[in-house]
Amino acid sequence: MKLDRILPFARTLLEKAFIPGTIAVDATLGNGHDTYFLAKLASVDGHVYGFDIQKEAIQTTKERLDADNLSDRVTLIHDGHEKVKEHIPESVKGKITAAIFNLGYLPGGDKSIVTKAETTISAIEQLLDLLAVEGIIVLVIYHGHDEGAIERDELLQYVKELDQQKAHVLRYQFENQKNNAPFIIAIEKR
Amino acid sequence: MKLDRILPFARTLLEKAFIPGTIAVDATLGNGHDTYFLAKLASVDGHVYGFDIQKEAIQTTKERLDADNLSDRVTLIHDGHEKVKEHIPESVKGKITAAIFNLGYLPGGDKSIVTKAETTISAIEQLLDLLAVEGIIVLVIYHGHDEGAIERDELLQYVKELDQQKAHVLRYQFENQKNNAPFIIAIEKR
Repeated sequence: MKLDRILPFARTLLEKAFIPGTIAVDATLGNGHDTYFLAKLASVDGHVYGFDIQKEAIQTTKERLDADNLSDRVTLIHDGHEKVKEHIPESVKGKITAAIFNLGYLPGGDKSIVTKAETTISAIEQLLDLLAVEGIIVLVIYHGHDEGAIERDELLQYVKELDQQKAHVLRYQFENQKNNAPFIIAIEKR
Repeated sequence: MKLDRILPFARTLLEKAFIPGTIAVDATLGNGHDTYFLAKLASVDGHVYGFDIQKEAIQTTKERLDADNLSDRVTLIHDGHEKVKEHIPESVKGKITAAIFNLGYLPGGDKSIVTKAETTISAIEQLLDLLAVEGIIVLVIYHGHDEGAIERDELLQYVKELDQQKAHVLRYQFENQKNNAPFIIAIEKR
């Protein structure tokens, strides 16, 4: 397949956006794959903040980072991403160049614990304020579960109304897949 | 801006798909920019077929190619793209790796002459048959004019129903732009 699939395209966007030595945010640790990926890209001068409300996600990510001695580059925060500004120091404003959200539930975890539009949008708003110009927020939207469809619709409405002078909003989606395959919304700050 | 804009992304897809030494099709010559781009990528062994119903488009493209001695690699066809199979020899079947459509009207030309869903879809069907596996058809959809909105809706309905076992259908679109900005549908044969 020559077209980038969803997850590789999300990675490509993170690589394009994240400048080594700056700050990245993983708003949903999940199994820690993105935090690990970002920590490697960060280089010794950069830093990654990772959020998750589930202890399990924090633990899994910590182990993954420890195994490769990457923990020094990462701050893991056991709290919801809607509290971004409570946990990230004001001094990083303008230094965040990449952020990622994997919306939905923790893969292999409790499917009743899901992200919700209200808190997701609150986190996006805060990140947009903290982001550097040309910084990118990548949203991978899983919408196969009931609340996922609701979150998707509210999010799409929100991003469509973002002022085009302030941000570019890109949608990257396969149109003929069954089973509500995930898709990407990428928001680049102007 | 770090996210690829529409026209650069269309070019990126063509570069990814078009294998030098194989065949490409420009279904809408317009001012010849894509044919010129494809002719350069084709290398001496490759070939490009370009279609347009407007003599003006054929002439402009011919001049562009002649200026860089690229005309040998290109066959310009003064006819509609729905007649692909009448003009392209059966022997190229399985050797076309890239095709592009710029839908709408000729930039700077007669705005009453526009592409239409029925002929566009007919051309896509024929090209899908002639395409190599992993070959990509790129559609740049301009939908700011009245017939453009109709063509867009019919095309979207058509591509959403393409069997996912036969083709991947990707949509690449900026979601918060005013004035019906163009967007991309890319169809990759499986």
